[in-house]
Amino acid sequence: MSTSTEQEREEGLAFRPKFDASGLVTCVATDAANGAVLMVAHMDEEALRKTIASGEAWYFSRSRNALWRKGETSGQTQRVVEMRMDCDQDAVWIRVEQVGAACHTGRKSCFYRKVEKVDGGARLAFVDSERLFDPDKVYRK
Amino acid sequence: MSTSTEQEREEGLAFRPKFDASGLVTCVATDAANGAVLMVAHMDEEALRKTIASGEAWYFSRSRNALWRKGETSGQTQRVVEMRMDCDQDAVWIRVEQVGAACHTGRKSCFYRKVEKVDGGARLAFVDSERLFDPDKVYRK
Repeated sequence: MSTSTEQEREEGLAFRPKFDASGLVTCVATDAANGAVLMVAHMDEEALRKTIASGEAWYFSRSRNALWRKGETSGQTQRVVEMRMDCDQDAVWIRVEQVGAACHTGRKSCFYRKVEKVDGGARLAFVDSERLFDPDKVYRK
Repeated sequence: MSTSTEQEREEGLAFRPKFDASGLVTCVATDAANGAVLMVAHMDEEALRKTIASGEAWYFSRSRNALWRKGETSGQTQRVVEMRMDCDQDAVWIRVEQVGAACHTGRKSCFYRKVEKVDGGARLAFVDSERLFDPDKVYRK
């Protein structure tokens, strides 16, 4: 069912990221301290290379179309404790030591609201509204 | 800097998923027992709706172009303990009780290999090679 290329990618030890049409893989960053998901972002080949080489998280911003060292503006850097690839090598999981907050809203994690089932649909509720920094001060100075 | 729509999406309580050009959001599933990332996949509007309504994870397979209840072939279902949305509502995090293994290779997590820095590049190493089921038996019977 799977081709030999797929088989090698899934069972081999060669680092062969499978980039999408935009040249990106998905990256999930979790807090090494407690396992919480901090953010979901993307890496291109250069971001992957720089992350591995430096031990600090680099991403590729789709909205700004630019390589970006996490924390270069905000100071909220991520030190990579471990990096893993998924089966088909189109997603990366990094466990990080987060300085301050991962989210551009100033919150520790981007996932600060939970989804609650309501009649015929869903609604959000804050689980963590605390801001560790003021985005107006950090990004617009 | 942000529009009122972006502001509402980030700070409001309305459930307003931001689907990409293919009608999908990214979903990260973690193990409710230990915080490990099990898989990264995608959900369309229907998969989101069915997941919320049923409390079991549904996804949209890009390769098969089809809605898919996790475990419908393998029996390896995911019961959703909590669902969260990220800041701009284009990614979902579900904490799940995983029956058996999340990965189609039979392993608990899709992230069974870590990335190791080597001279001028990277290499993978298994951190969990154990298969909890035999994919040849489960998917090709």
